[in-house]
Amino acid sequence: MTSHPPLLNDRLLRALRRQPVDRTPVWIMRQAGRYLPEYRASRERAGSFMALCQTPELACEVTLQPLARFPLDAAILFSDILTIPDAMGLGLSFVEGEGPRFARPLRSAADIEALAVPDPAVELRYVIDAVSLIRRELAGKVPLIGFSGSPWTLACYMIEGGGGTDFRRAKALLAEQPELMHRLLDVLTRAVIDYLAAQRAAGAQALQVFDSWGGVLAPHHFREFSLRYLERIAAALGQGDAPDRVPLILFAKGANGSHLTALADTGADALGLDWTQGLAEARRLTGDRVALQGNLDPALLYAEPGAIEREAAAVLADYGRGPGHVFNLGHGITPQVRPEHLGALVDAVARLSPRWHAPAD
Amino acid sequence: MTSHPPLLNDRLLRALRRQPVDRTPVWIMRQAGRYLPEYRASRERAGSFMALCQTPELACEVTLQPLARFPLDAAILFSDILTIPDAMGLGLSFVEGEGPRFARPLRSAADIEALAVPDPAVELRYVIDAVSLIRRELAGKVPLIGFSGSPWTLACYMIEGGGGTDFRRAKALLAEQPELMHRLLDVLTRAVIDYLAAQRAAGAQALQVFDSWGGVLAPHHFREFSLRYLERIAAALGQGDAPDRVPLILFAKGANGSHLTALADTGADALGLDWTQGLAEARRLTGDRVALQGNLDPALLYAEPGAIEREAAAVLADYGRGPGHVFNLGHGITPQVRPEHLGALVDAVARLSPRWHAPAD
Repeated sequence: MTSHPPLLNDRLLRALRRQPVDRTPVWIMRQAGRYLPEYRASRERAGSFMALCQTPELACEVTLQPLARFPLDAAILFSDILTIPDAMGLGLSFVEGEGPRFARPLRSAADIEALAVPDPAVELRYVIDAVSLIRRELAGKVPLIGFSGSPWTLACYMIEGGGGTDFRRAKALLAEQPELMHRLLDVLTRAVIDYLAAQRAAGAQALQVFDSWGGVLAPHHFREFSLRYLERIAAALGQGDAPDRVPLILFAKGANGSHLTALADTGADALGLDWTQGLAEARRLTGDRVALQGNLDPALLYAEPGAIEREAAAVLADYGRGPGHVFNLGHGITPQVRPEHLGALVDAVARLSPRWHAPAD
Repeated sequence: MTSHPPLLNDRLLRALRRQPVDRTPVWIMRQAGRYLPEYRASRERAGSFMALCQTPELACEVTLQPLARFPLDAAILFSDILTIPDAMGLGLSFVEGEGPRFARPLRSAADIEALAVPDPAVELRYVIDAVSLIRRELAGKVPLIGFSGSPWTLACYMIEGGGGTDFRRAKALLAEQPELMHRLLDVLTRAVIDYLAAQRAAGAQALQVFDSWGGVLAPHHFREFSLRYLERIAAALGQGDAPDRVPLILFAKGANGSHLTALADTGADALGLDWTQGLAEARRLTGDRVALQGNLDPALLYAEPGAIEREAAAVLADYGRGPGHVFNLGHGITPQVRPEHLGALVDAVARLSPRWHAPAD
């Protein structure tokens, strides 16, 4: 075990454990991303998105960039959710303006049966090394979040061959051959558990699972093909009530309403919410058993700073008093946002949130 | 008043009024669409999508095409939700493979202030003529549904200039200048009411409002910028408890959960649901005050017919016993679906639904 310097800002971890804080912690999904000119410069130097992910020094460099600009309360590993399928041999690349593409998408039962769980220390070594390096470079300034895609979301990309689809192949497969879909989800679940456990061992202080496509499913399909596997992940990574447990955040985009109740029952510490779910209603649905992370509409960062501040105030008021709120967007920040608009948001949360944590009169 | 032949199949109207039926009525959003070879042939002959919409004989021809193939329980006017903004002077066209585009999108307060409510009998005459013609040609076989886009959805397209966006301009406007957005929504609401009333007068036997983009809003924005105007439309078109009232269906895609309760309070007769909202839960949320329409995941039509039948059975079982269900997809049918797959769905609903309407033992 490496010994680490003490954590100087523990707001995120306290909020995820539903402990009192002085103000609402804030971090932003895709905070190390294309909206930052310094990110675009690093990406240019790396030559490709994959080179940026696969070179720990560069991944560390871009992970730290937003922290140098904004007083954020967490760093998140710079990587991609599709590293696991790439390590399984599907051949990931990123086509400019089109997003991820697999050279060898899953096209048959034999393709699925041939998949093996990657060893994070070997096939995903570059990610684990990046986690260690970033944790060291952070020097306790803020905690480091590790992450993975969810089994269902990875399966979608692996079957469709990329993003931006209506998921017709994945949905036809689950309706026609549910047992084959479960076989795929099982191997992915084992891979996600090993991968997140390895990130935790390397220094990640919180973990987030992105179920980006959970919300595209009908409710009975969500329960059978996504939720069930999120439950397995939460059970496998659980550490009981240890005070130093590494919190787990589940973000199932679009899985709102009664799905939140089920997600809160998985044993995860926190749920990420997109902007279409009210926070007050989510507190009611989850009975305050979990922390909630979110959920400003990312498109509102295109409005002028005064409007951004009003909308941030509305999100804080919707959550209301007491611990357990981590401020974030409801989805990743988009490339055309002006960095000073994010600055206005982070400042607004710092300025406006303490009143929601002050002792009641 | 034209006198019309008696309606031979009143399942849709009875279900929308929550009256008993022998089996669950079924129609399909975009049932007259590109998945049908005969539609593609008509579209080819017309020269453009707009010519198809604007020529009543051609609009009638394609409206009737799916009824010749499948035992559907309703016809829906062939038209587009963007006819109102086109009539307001924005210049609608359809770019192959890219969807709708406005030549003159709204770019300033002056653009918004210059908008006037179109007279349906003049600027939208081609639609009203199509409604009359289709009603005549149907000769009472099944009822005819008229429709409009919702004010919020029309506003999105008019501000963004087309579809397929993240709505950043529309969302920035509502956050920065809410009063200007309300001015736009007000003129659109008056236009939608006049337009739907004219379709009803010309022979439409049910009306549907498509709020295709209601679900992209945060809850407080949905209530302020979409729901409020749907309420005005429902109030203006309401006809009390008249037995021959023309039912109103509100379809706010993605506006699930607690939004359904609010939508049921508008006085509309029925709510359309997308596939991410469970029907049993929707019944609970709406207290059986409205009929519910939906909601098979449209991507499941890419699965083989046996799987389609199982999924149709799951939708019927989710709604459960009793009146008030109209079977539909949760969104429009997509162009690459094979027509015989839709045939399998329509047959499955006819075969499997009577048991949910039989008297209890």
